[in-house]
This record gives sequence, structure tokens and C-alpha cells, in this order.
Amino acid sequence: MKPSNDLAALFNPRSVAIVGASANPAKMGYRYLHQLIQFGFEGKLYPVNPAGGFILGLPAYKSFKDLPAPVDYVISAIPANQLPQLIHDCAAKDVKLLQLYTAHLGETEHGKDLEQQIIKIARDASIRILGPNCMGVYNPRTKLTFRLGWPKEAGDVAFISQSAGHTAEAVYRAARRGLRFSQVISFGNAADINEIDLLQYLAEDNNTTIIAAYIEGLKAPHRFHQVLETTARKKPVVLLKGGRTPAGRRATLSHTGSLSSGDVLWSSLMKQCGVVAVSSIEELVDLTLAIHNLPQPKGINVGAIGSGGGLSVSLADECESRGLVLPAFPPEIMSQIQELMGKDSAMVKNPVDTSVIFPAGWTGSEVKRIFQLMVEHPDFHMFLVDAGEWSLDSPEEIPRYHELMGIFREVAKGLGKPAVIVTRTGDAPEEWRWQAAMEAESQCFRDGLTIYPSLPRAANALSRLVGYYNERATNSVS
Amino acid sequence: MKPSNDLAALFNPRSVAIVGASANPAKMGYRYLHQLIQFGFEGKLYPVNPAGGFILGLPAYKSFKDLPAPVDYVISAIPANQLPQLIHDCAAKDVKLLQLYTAHLGETEHGKDLEQQIIKIARDASIRILGPNCMGVYNPRTKLTFRLGWPKEAGDVAFISQSAGHTAEAVYRAARRGLRFSQVISFGNAADINEIDLLQYLAEDNNTTIIAAYIEGLKAPHRFHQVLETTARKKPVVLLKGGRTPAGRRATLSHTGSLSSGDVLWSSLMKQCGVVAVSSIEELVDLTLAIHNLPQPKGINVGAIGSGGGLSVSLADECESRGLVLPAFPPEIMSQIQELMGKDSAMVKNPVDTSVIFPAGWTGSEVKRIFQLMVEHPDFHMFLVDAGEWSLDSPEEIPRYHELMGIFREVAKGLGKPAVIVTRTGDAPEEWRWQAAMEAESQCFRDGLTIYPSLPRAANALSRLVGYYNERATNSVS
Repeated sequence: MKPSNDLAALFNPRSVAIVGASANPAKMGYRYLHQLIQFGFEGKLYPVNPAGGFILGLPAYKSFKDLPAPVDYVISAIPANQLPQLIHDCAAKDVKLLQLYTAHLGETEHGKDLEQQIIKIARDASIRILGPNCMGVYNPRTKLTFRLGWPKEAGDVAFISQSAGHTAEAVYRAARRGLRFSQVISFGNAADINEIDLLQYLAEDNNTTIIAAYIEGLKAPHRFHQVLETTARKKPVVLLKGGRTPAGRRATLSHTGSLSSGDVLWSSLMKQCGVVAVSSIEELVDLTLAIHNLPQPKGINVGAIGSGGGLSVSLADECESRGLVLPAFPPEIMSQIQELMGKDSAMVKNPVDTSVIFPAGWTGSEVKRIFQLMVEHPDFHMFLVDAGEWSLDSPEEIPRYHELMGIFREVAKGLGKPAVIVTRTGDAPEEWRWQAAMEAESQCFRDGLTIYPSLPRAANALSRLVGYYNERATNSVS
Repeated sequence: MKPSNDLAALFNPRSVAIVGASANPAKMGYRYLHQLIQFGFEGKLYPVNPAGGFILGLPAYKSFKDLPAPVDYVISAIPANQLPQLIHDCAAKDVKLLQLYTAHLGETEHGKDLEQQIIKIARDASIRILGPNCMGVYNPRTKLTFRLGWPKEAGDVAFISQSAGHTAEAVYRAARRGLRFSQVISFGNAADINEIDLLQYLAEDNNTTIIAAYIEGLKAPHRFHQVLETTARKKPVVLLKGGRTPAGRRATLSHTGSLSSGDVLWSSLMKQCGVVAVSSIEELVDLTLAIHNLPQPKGINVGAIGSGGGLSVSLADECESRGLVLPAFPPEIMSQIQELMGKDSAMVKNPVDTSVIFPAGWTGSEVKRIFQLMVEHPDFHMFLVDAGEWSLDSPEEIPRYHELMGIFREVAKGLGKPAVIVTRTGDAPEEWRWQAAMEAESQCFRDGLTIYPSLPRAANALSRLVGYYNERATNSVS
């Protein structure tokens, strides 16, 4: 029998065995089982531990051979030297996928031979290996997970990563800003299932509309190039390459045993394939969010709302230093603002500085009307709103802050043009302020709006969004 | 009588009058008074309002002329057209500084003439003007403030800014990371007291060891160049230039009436003067923090602790792509690690990946010892520790997180070499996680340690710190 290439089936198991399951909360064999139970995994769970007894209320099997039924998916948290025997046992139970949390294999000098041996045995036994040295699969549809704090709702973003730590960073930050995942796959050393398999699978996966990836090294560079190109034609791919520097490459070698090649080669590869290259997990989340949430901009002109004079200046500088343009208001908008505000209209420019409108005695309704004039005008292709926090100097000001946020949400919702809102939850120094901004953010993403934690990051996202579509147009012409 | 050039005296008033004081909490004339009372301003407070009566428990004077005594410092929250009369009245009361919250002056077409007229009247009356169109002075030593949420303790960082919004951003973020201010001066249109006066004053101010500045335009470019150069020789200057782009320049014009010149000119000016140029308020805070807190690095080698395999790779990439170097461990460190950890020592590299040490059964004491070996070795000039958050998947893991943070603090405290710690409070999606990280951060800065909210920002800070001292060395040679 040939090992299955149907990763969709492999990542949607009806039964999972945890080999090396443990009653000790400090052990990963406990955590895997605990998380699957708590998260509500919908299939059968079989803990395996030589001591038998019960673990977290489930009967533990003393040996893998004792399992009462075939099992789709096996998580290994046992030492590497026990793997050859485990794979033989797995074959007898019709196991399709063995996920190896087990490490100390290809990423170490002494484990390289054993890793190759294991892969060979698994191939002969028609079992696919995920890892070794990986955390496995988060699939919110079937409630398979390796992390308890992640959302239970499924979405359409896929993230594949040779680093599990990066998945934690990315999913927390993305989830908080409204992104949900079709699956997250931590694939470690990629000794069997690798970046090529995963891209091919995700390119066809109907639950996935965008692919984010963290890759340290390649098993088959030429094939990868082809597959990346084909995949990126079907779906946006946002890629963080690990090991772009000498010390970074040394670190990939001891992390996943990956030999990474130079940054220049990768940069041109990604450019050729129309892949969105990022330099950090923050940027990976920022750009995945932008490309996932926002429609294609029809030009480079930004209509902006700033929160104060200096912040409006910074907003403009951040955008225009990245190739975007904040045009002055066209006469037809100016005349309407004049009608609305009389002589105070001279203060209203792009970016609109809300701090000069409010003290002049004007209210939210003027801000709303001006914002509407911008979004309806064909000269403005994108929108950047700075929610500010000047108004959040004390808890009494929270209602006013939410009122203004409500106006922004109302105008920006379902707009058909890219619009992003900058909130500053992240750096909030007090709990009440953090809560106020968190609430505003939740309301934003419930309304489908896209939030960024700072002006530089918002401007970068809009600028790279434009670049992504330009690159795509160029690639499809050439 | 000549108007006073002694800004130290001007910014440390014994009495403050608020003209346009109001009982309406929505008005700035209320907020100024309320904030000064709540913050505990130590001098006398005189509200002035034509209606008289009591405001916030203090007797309000119907006219400025009615004030029972001379007054040092006057805050104006009245319309611009009433200013000429106010200045005449101020002269009679021996006022030294008039701070104009009042706006609609030089930053508007119709207000330019009036602004010039006011400055002339003030000069004739020997009164200095701060603003117009500014929030004024925060001086924690005398409890003068224009913001209630800021720290009451004084420090040695000065921030001068043509934007009050930027002061709010900067002080919150800096304060949360342990910086405290000698003073923050929002100086708006800079019609009288300008960036030159303020730099000269701060260069001599014994309470100030580092100067951060946000400047939109210059009144006297050549003189500014000289003063900036002299000041930067005495104390580090971190400078954000507003209006680096066409739309940014349009925005400075309507914000503070500032004519800003091009980015290229400014860049070379700042480089020549040894000024730390930044492109955002985040970076202004990040670099002020680094230069304020950290000693001069003796080289470019970074010893690092990563939080997981992928994060260690990213840490290395972030540093080395910015010109820093993460050298491999020298033999004398390797041999000690070997003694400590036996065959597992092969996993320990620079960056040290804590996630491979812990699962191997090793504890915090090994991490501590390895970190100590690095900090004691002359080959390592700087240290970057990623506290990570992988371990914060559930509240039960908080004690373990704090234990590890404690180890980092203990080793890094009072080190004599630059050391920074990355925490990720900002993006924490849940309150318990936010609280845990906030607590860890507070403990860090109480111990004098320097925290950054992400790997890119930490690496940027260390790299720019090296650049700052290199630049200084070059400038003093030439």
C-alpha cells in the first residue's frame, strides 16, 4: 500500500492515540491529552502508557498493541529510540499519520541516522510522518489542537510553520484581530511531510483562502519553486523565511536541522513567485490580515483621519514615505465641507484632524459626514483612521471614545475599498484603558474591520497591499 | 525690562492662573484646573471667569485684573481675539509666562497677523509666550501638568514637542517601561519660545540627562543647527522630524503653521550633529529608553536567549540583519556548558534556546548559569533575552513564567553591559496574560532593566545604540 497523499484525510482524524500519555501535568504526554479533551476533540482518544490505569479519566493502554481498534492519527511523546518499534506497532493498527513531538533526531548530530531510518520504516509501513520535533496540527473544525488558548471557531487562514513557537505568536495576535484559521500545522524537521506537500494540499483545500508560512530550509529547492509559484497563483502566500543571516542559519540547523540558503536567493524566489515576503511574525500577521480582509485597492490614494495635529503629520509621513499618497481634497469635497462647517472648513484637510473639529464645537456628525464624503469619492482608494487615545486620559472618557469608534465603524463597514483602523490597545498602561481599547477592537473586527496597533504598521500594511496586487499584475503579464 | 530667558524659572511657577477656567467638564478651562488640583500642583491656583463664583472649590475671579497678587504663569483657554487685552492685564500682574492653549492663530490664514501682533505686545510687556496652540508644561517636580494619567514621580528625560498628541503617546509608553521625565513641553506654534530656546535650556538643565524632541519646522535654521550640535555634544538628543513627505508638510502647515523642509536636508543635519533620528513615536520611545538606560556597548557581539527554536532563529535574523553579530560560543564557554549538561550541551548555542533546555529535564539553574557565562565573557558586548510567552498558554503557568523572568532579572541587573528583555504584553489577547506580562515588566523596570515589546524593536534599539556611539566617536574625531 502507498502512503496516503491525502493530507486532508490525515489532518481530520476520527481517532487519536497519544503514546507517552502521562498523568504528570509537566509532561507533554499529559498536555496533549488534556488539551484535546478540554478543546472538545470530536473523535476517539486513546492514551498509551506502560503503567496503564486511567489518565484524565480515560483508560490508558499499556501497549500500543493493546488498542481495541484501528487508529487514524498517533501523537508520539516518547523517546526517539522507541520509535522504530512504535512504527511497526502502528502499521498493525492501520495508522495513517504519526506526528512526532519526539525530537533529538535530524536536528542533532547523533539523531540524523535514526531519523532517516524511521522515515524509511514508516514509508515501508505506508505511514506518513509529521515532524519529528513538531507540535502537530490545530484544526478547529474537528477540535484537534496542540494549544488550549486558541479559538474554537474555524476560519479560512492556513499557517504552516517549522516553528511551533511562531504559531503561538501568530495565532494569538491574528485571532485577537479577528482572523480565524482553517488549520495551523507545526511541521518541525519536515523529514517526511514537508513544505511542498503542505503547499500542494493547501492550494487545493477549499477551507483555505490564504496561506501563511514559516520555512527554515528546503528539501527540494527546484520542486519547491514550482509548487510555490503554482500555489501563489491560486491563493495569496505570505512567507517568513527563517535563517536569513549567518547566526539565523546556525539556529535553523540546530532547530530543525534545516540548511537554509542565502537571503538574496530567497528574496528573488519570492518576488518571482508573487509571494508576500515578511521579516517578522508581526509583519506576517499584519500582511495576512490585510490581504485576507481587504479588497484590492484601485490606486495609491489614501483618505485619512488623524487623531490630533502631530499624529496627522505622522500618519501622512508614514504613508507617503512608503509610496502611498494623501491627496488634498478635490474642490467638490471642499465645497461640501464648506457648506457643512462654514469658515472652520479651512481647518479640514486630508488627513482630517479630529482634534481641530471637536474643540471648534463640532460633533461626531461632522466627522462622520466628512469621512463619508471621502469614502464615496473615486479619488480616494484606501482609508486609514487613527482612533487615537488622547481622549482616553481618564475612565470618564470611555463613552466618548466608543462613540467616535462607532462612527468610524459605521462608515467603514462593508465599504468595498480597503479601510484600516489604528487602535493602541497594545501599549495601554492601565487596565481600564486596555479594556476600553480591547472592546473597541472586538467591535471593529466583529464588523469586519481591520485593525493595526500602530501607524507605521498600518501604513506598511496598506503599502504592501498595493505592492502585492502590483506584483501579481506584473507576474501575470510576464 | 527684558523678557526672561530663564526658562527654568518660567517652568517652575509658584502660582498659576487659568484664564477661561470653566465649571463645564467638557471645556479645556475646566480640565486644566481639574488636572492641576488632582495632580497636586504645589503653588497657588487662580481660576479666572467673567461669571465669577466658585470653580472646583476655588473662587473664580471675574477679571484678570481682580487677581489679588502677582502671578508667575498664566494658562489661556480664551478665544484668540481676547489675547491682546489679556497680555496688557498680565503685564500689570508681573506675569512671566503666558501659555496659550488658545489656537486659531499662526496655523490658520486669518490668524497669522494676530499671532505676530500678540508676540509683539508680549515682548514689549516682557512676557514670554509658550505656544500658541499648545498644551503647555508637565513638570512632575512642581506637579504642573496638562495630563492627569502621567506619573507623579520625576525623572531625567525631557521631551519637547510641537504636538501634544505625541507627548501623550510618548509619555504613556515610556512611563510604562520605567522612564520618568524631568519635564515635557508641548510648544505648539513656537511663536516665541521655540526649539532653539528649549534645547539651550535643556542642555544646561541639571535635571535632564537626555532630550527627546518632536519638531515640525524651524524659525532660524542656521542658529538651530549650531544649537543642536552644541546640545547633542552635551546630552543625547533623539529627534522625530514631522513633515518628511509632501502630505506630512501640508499637515505641519495646518497643525502649527510650520514650514518644514525636505527629509534629505534634515537627515544630513541630524547625522552631522550626532542626533538620533527616528521615524515614529514608537521608535522615539524605544531609542530614548535604550540610550537613557544602557551603557555604551564595547562592540557589536550579542549574547542571546531565545524562547523556542523558531524564535531563536528570528532573534538571530533580526539582530544580524541590522549589523549586529551573534558569535558562536567560544571554547571556554562550551567546555563549561559541557561540564554542566553533558551530551545535551550540543543543543546549547547562541542564541540559547530555553525550550530545548527545559524539556531535556534541565531547570532554571542551568539557564541561569549559561546566561552568567555569557555576561561574564568579554566576547559578548550586549544581551538580548526573549522572555517568550509559549509558556503562558494557561493561567496555571504564570508562576513558572515569573520564575524564569526572575532568573533573567537577577543575571541582567546592574550588569555594566547593555541588556534588554523582550516581553509581549502589548499583544496579549487575554486579561490574565496581559496582567502577568505587565507584572513581569514592572519587576523588570524596577530592577533597572530595559524592556521591548517585540524582537524587531529590541534588535533595532541595540543596533541603533551601537550606531549612536559610533557616530559620536566619528564626530568627535572629525
